[in-house]
Parts: sequence; C-alpha cells; structure tokens
Amino acid sequence: MSEFLRACRRESTAFTPVWLMRQAGRYQPEYRALRAKYGFVEMCKQPEVAAEVTLLPVTQLGVDAAIIFADILLILEPLGIGFEFTKDDGPRIQKPIRTAADVNGVAQQIDPEASLGYVLQAIRNTRSGLPANVPLIGFAGAPFTLASYVIEGGGSRDYMHTKALMFSDAGAWNALMAKLTAAVASYLNAQVKAGAQALQVFDSWVGCLSPSDYVQYVQPHMRALFRALDASVPVIHFGTGTATVLGEMAKAGGDVIGLDWRIELDRGWASVGPDRGVQGNLDPAVLLAPWAQVEEAAKDVLRRAGGSLLEVPGSTVRVGRVNLPIAGGGYFRQFPYGWTKWGIERVNRVEQKPVTFYTHPWEIDPDQPRIPVGAATRVRHYRGLDRTAQRLARLLADFRFDSVTSMLDLSALKVA
Amino acid sequence: MSEFLRACRRESTAFTPVWLMRQAGRYQPEYRALRAKYGFVEMCKQPEVAAEVTLLPVTQLGVDAAIIFADILLILEPLGIGFEFTKDDGPRIQKPIRTAADVNGVAQQIDPEASLGYVLQAIRNTRSGLPANVPLIGFAGAPFTLASYVIEGGGSRDYMHTKALMFSDAGAWNALMAKLTAAVASYLNAQVKAGAQALQVFDSWVGCLSPSDYVQYVQPHMRALFRALDASVPVIHFGTGTATVLGEMAKAGGDVIGLDWRIELDRGWASVGPDRGVQGNLDPAVLLAPWAQVEEAAKDVLRRAGGSLLEVPGSTVRVGRVNLPIAGGGYFRQFPYGWTKWGIERVNRVEQKPVTFYTHPWEIDPDQPRIPVGAATRVRHYRGLDRTAQRLARLLADFRFDSVTSMLDLSALKVA
Repeated sequence: MSEFLRACRRESTAFTPVWLMRQAGRYQPEYRALRAKYGFVEMCKQPEVAAEVTLLPVTQLGVDAAIIFADILLILEPLGIGFEFTKDDGPRIQKPIRTAADVNGVAQQIDPEASLGYVLQAIRNTRSGLPANVPLIGFAGAPFTLASYVIEGGGSRDYMHTKALMFSDAGAWNALMAKLTAAVASYLNAQVKAGAQALQVFDSWVGCLSPSDYVQYVQPHMRALFRALDASVPVIHFGTGTATVLGEMAKAGGDVIGLDWRIELDRGWASVGPDRGVQGNLDPAVLLAPWAQVEEAAKDVLRRAGGSLLEVPGSTVRVGRVNLPIAGGGYFRQFPYGWTKWGIERVNRVEQKPVTFYTHPWEIDPDQPRIPVGAATRVRHYRGLDRTAQRLARLLADFRFDSVTSMLDLSALKVA
Repeated sequence: MSEFLRACRRESTAFTPVWLMRQAGRYQPEYRALRAKYGFVEMCKQPEVAAEVTLLPVTQLGVDAAIIFADILLILEPLGIGFEFTKDDGPRIQKPIRTAADVNGVAQQIDPEASLGYVLQAIRNTRSGLPANVPLIGFAGAPFTLASYVIEGGGSRDYMHTKALMFSDAGAWNALMAKLTAAVASYLNAQVKAGAQALQVFDSWVGCLSPSDYVQYVQPHMRALFRALDASVPVIHFGTGTATVLGEMAKAGGDVIGLDWRIELDRGWASVGPDRGVQGNLDPAVLLAPWAQVEEAAKDVLRRAGGSLLEVPGSTVRVGRVNLPIAGGGYFRQFPYGWTKWGIERVNRVEQKPVTFYTHPWEIDPDQPRIPVGAATRVRHYRGLDRTAQRLARLLADFRFDSVTSMLDLSALKVA
C-alpha cells in the first residue's frame, strides 16, 4: 500500500505524503499545449486527454497521489442542470434552481456509467498508467457546495439565495440535497469501481453556515452520503472556513478531514478527533513570503502535526536537523499550488521529500483565466518582495488565480 | 447611565440593549430624500445633515444607542490616500499602497480637528439632539482593515496584495500599520472629546488571517491602539470570521468583542473570556426564514447569552413565557438590518423590547446601490418564501445589499 493510503488510514508512514489539488495545470507547458487545442470541459470529456493530464505531474513533481482531472460541476449535466464556464466570471448555471418546482425538475438519480462514463474511463486509463505505489484520488462536490452553485447560479460571497431556500422551504431544500446526495454517492462509487483508490468530497463553501445550521440542514445529508460510499476506499472530507464545524463534519463522516489555515493544525485536529486523519493547512499566501518565513511556517505545521495530540506512536520525519515524530500518519502536507518544482527542490533540502499541495480558496484555475478588470498588477508593485519571491513569481509566470475581486495577476510579473 | 453603556461595562441591565450598525439608511424615506440631494461623502461632510441622519432612527426605531453617520474610509483623506465610491464596485483607492515607498508617502499623523472636523461637529450636533439615555457611538476602521483597503485598492476576497506586503516586507507593513494606528487613535479620541460615549473599532476583514499571522502582524498594533484610546469610554472590538482569533482579539483590547454567526455565542464568549462583553450573533440570512424559525434562532442566541457561562448573577429578560437570566449584561442583540420596524413589532411580543441590529458581511449600503450585473432577482424566485417573509420583503423594497457577487437584490421584490 502507498504511504498516502497508509496516512489516510492513520497507519504509520515513513514520511508525510503530499499531493496538490490542482497538480495538473497551467504551469505545465504540456498542459498549456493541450488547452490550446481543447476547451476545459472538452478536456474532461476525452478520457485519453484527461488521463494524460492527470498523469503529467506524477513524474514531474513526484507527488504521492494523483487526482483525476475533472470538475465538480460535471455531475450537473446528467442532473439536468445546464452550466457553462464563462470567460470572466467562472461557472454559470443557465437556470438557477430556486423554487420547489425547480427542484422537482432535477433528475432523481443519475447513471454514472451512461452520463459520466468519460470520467470513469479517464480513471481506468489513468490507473493503468500510474506506478503501483501512486494511488488515484477520485472526487466530487458535496451536496451543499453543489447546491450553492446551482441555487446562486455561480460563485457567491454570502450565499443568500442558498440560505433563502434553505431557511424558507425545508421541503424543497431537503429534496434538492437528497437528489444531490444520491447522485454524488453513485458517481463516487462508480469512480471507485473504475479504479479510484481514495475519494475527496469537496464541501468547499459550507463554512458560510452557522454550526447549528450546518447540523440542521447539511449534516444529515452528509451522513447519508458517507454511509452510501464504498467502504473499501478512504474518503477525505474537505472544506474551508470550517473551524467551528470541524467536529460536526467529522461526525458526518470521512477518514480524513481538511483543515484550512484559519485554525492551527493541532487545535483543528483536536476538534476533528484523534480517530481521523487531517489534511492541511498553510495559508497559500505564504507563497509570497521570503523563503525563511515559508520554511518556518511549514515547520510550524509539521510541529503541530507531530505534537503530542495523538497517543499513537508514530514514525519520524527529518525536518532540518531535528527529528520530529509524525504520530501515526494521518496527516498530509498542504501547500500552495505554486510550489511545484521550486517547492520540491527547496523542501527536499528540509525534509528529503517532495512537498506540494494546493488549497482553497485561491484555486488556481488552469482553465478559466480570470483577470478581473482593473486588477491587473504590474511587477513594480512587488519591489518589496525579496529575490526569492521574485524567482518564484517568475516560475509562476503563467498562473492565474481564481477570484472575484482585486486578484493578484501573477502573470503580470512576467514583464519584469 | 444608559442600559447600553451598562452592558458595555458588564453591569446588570434590565433588558438586552440593541442597536443597528446601519440604523440610518435607505429604508427611511427621510434618508432617501437627503440622498437624492447629496452624495454619500457629501452627506458625511455636512455636520447638520450627518447629525440629522444619525438621529432619524433613534425615535423611529427606539434603539438603545445611536451611531454617528460616517464611513471608515474618511480617515484616508488626511492620510493622503485618495478614494472614491464607484457606482458598482464600492470603494476604490486611487493609488493603492503596495511598496515601502508608497508607505513613506502616507502622512505620519493626522489632525482630526482640522481634517475630520466635520465628523466631530456632527458628533456635537447629534449629541445635543439625543435623549440623555441614548448614548452616541463613534467609530473607525481598525488598522488591518484599513490597510486591506488601501493595499488591495478596494474590497477583496483573499487579500493577496495585503498578505504579499505583510509577508514580504515587514518594515513597510509595520510602518503602514503604525501610521494607521496613530491616525485611528487620534481620530477616535477626538470623537470622544466631541461627545462620543462609546467607540467601535471595525476590524471587519481580519478573519482572513491565520491565528499566528494575526498575533504576529496585527495584534501588536491593536494593543497599541487600545492602549492609546481614551479610557473613559467603552470600546467594541468588531470583526467577522474571527472564530479562531477571538481570544487574541480580546487580549489586544476592547470591552466588548463582536461575534458573528459562525460560532455559537456561548462558545465564542468562552473564547473571549468572561471579563468582556460580547455582541452578536445571528446570521443576517435568518431574515429570509419564516417567523417561527427567526424567533427560534433569536431565542437560541438569548439562551446562549444567558447560560451559565458567566458567574456574575444577572438580570432577567422575558422571552416568550420563560424568564431567562441575562448574566451581568455585556451582551447586545445583533440582528439583520432589515428588521427595523417590522422586527420591533414582532420582537416586542417576544421580548417586550425593540430589537434591531445589523451585522456584516452584508452591509446594506444605503449609499452605493450595487446591483451586480446579471444578479438581479425577480420575485418569482421567492415563491418558496412564506407570507411572513414576503411581507418583510415588501418592507425591504428599497434596500440594497453591499456585496461583490451574486447578491440578492431585494428591491426586485417590489414588482410582486
């Protein structure tokens, strides 16, 4: 079994396994060449292309797991909810779901093999191309996060439409969540059947809810989802801004719970409970710090992961000149996407292990360059960055960040 | 002394005092008449107009405190940082501050009487028009939140420019924060001298930081700010998304700490510590629920406020048919802005006390109608809302919400 899967199951590992959420992307010339030929959804729908893209970073970056190249919104098509990726604003739902009647129009269930067979075929193709010790992660959006897209019609800051339906029409809300839950469960189980060896459920936006609303409106559906999932593979339960609902998320299910930087890893792990693994949790913005700070931040995460929180004796990992215990596995390094090769070189020196892992909310979108009007930034703004950061910025020259407002466009740094 | 000031000082109160953050605004015909004549900043700059607007809701709503009509960005003018309110995107900084040289160009200190005298005069005018038992709250943006505006150039989702400067150039960061801290302290103290009887410091966006980054980059400046403030008035320390830094915010200072809905009030108060009051914490989206749920949510907050967390014996407040202890004051009701008169009628029945209090992040902006392109919503989407919510929606017909994306435009409900 791979170190990644051991960590998922909280078994001892020789090192801290790492992967990136968008480890295939625009930073790769090979990816860009493919994107020049195909649209994003088109790439997802061609199994040989999706598999090629999925495999690209495995040897290039030396990550400990692959994640299938796909998008959480693909499932909407068989549910009868049309969507598109607009050039500037990201995903757009053609007819947002906002009433009980709209919910009635959503398909009761999906047939993943018939409607999402291209993802399953991509999984089969990828699996056959992967080294035996590199597992493949399948994934889907969680019901709440999918509901937020289909109700809002796209991304949101406050999820007011979503909450309006949730608070005002429990019948319609639960009907929608139940349909999404059933579809996601059958889609994820089909991914396992096709060869996925672990799953990640993205509840990326659930952190907008109060803890009691999470428990009332979301948790029952998440419990149902986790109960319905193939028990032969570990499942990662991912969210952001969830510091106050981590315990309830863990109760809903998941072998590994995602943490973001807003809570210290040890404190977050304490909320999650010692019977689960955790994944996280550096702020991606650390990317812009000088190397010494980056290294210190990374070490702090490792220290917190290796602290005395867990009573299970663990293996050790070399960090600088100190051997730190990593208790019983169950922890993944999570780093900004942009680290990639540069990160690997540096972290190899620190930890003798490649490190790259990307986290929300700045999903670097390899497919939808979104440079907000007026927000393009010239390199002159970054005179303050030290040389290390500038080197990194050059490496990131082709990246775009996904955000609605005032987003740093690192591609502008290319002019330097 | 007023019940509001008693609560700020954690003395026993006869009832839970309430106020709204934007208790003067577009829902008022009188406000709209003034806004038809003047621009927003123009209104702030005319003390008699600002005072009139500040006083309007006091008798109309029966709130327990007034808050001066102003904007946190006004302080930027004497600091030499130009800004404007654009029609669609909200505040825009003309030349964002992003380098050490930019920071050097920011004024070292301000003379509030000379440059912000219009706010101080508005405070004097308001004070003389207020009943003796209704105190006046002065306010300012906290250094981090102001820094985020001046560095990003406006609102943001991820504060990447801000963090880039913070992480990469500690000298420039601390210089900027020190200048902002000094200016805010002298501005707030001038407000007290002019008649403000309490202060609120808005650190609205500080929740984007990790706890350790808060402690390293923000807390020292907040400590300096609170130390510099006139100790004769209580200070409210406000933020959103701050569940994991509440304890550190309290250590920095403030007699009352703001909580948002992402943390249960009792859990949040435990983080803050029993030596401070708290303010909060319903999700404004509860506004869209049927009344029974709204009432239940409000009662839950009151129950959590009146629980056994504090050892100080408190007074009681009648909630429905149950007498609940409100321990030692120190707690404010916090409700969505839109409640206003409608809320008062309803809550009078529950609690025999007017209730209206608005919180972030949906600042209903009375001055900058911002209807995102494509996000206008027709009433047909709200068939799911029950009659109570529809009545409320009609009441809110003239409201606009301040948000960047996919925002519900309740004014569209007027067509129903």
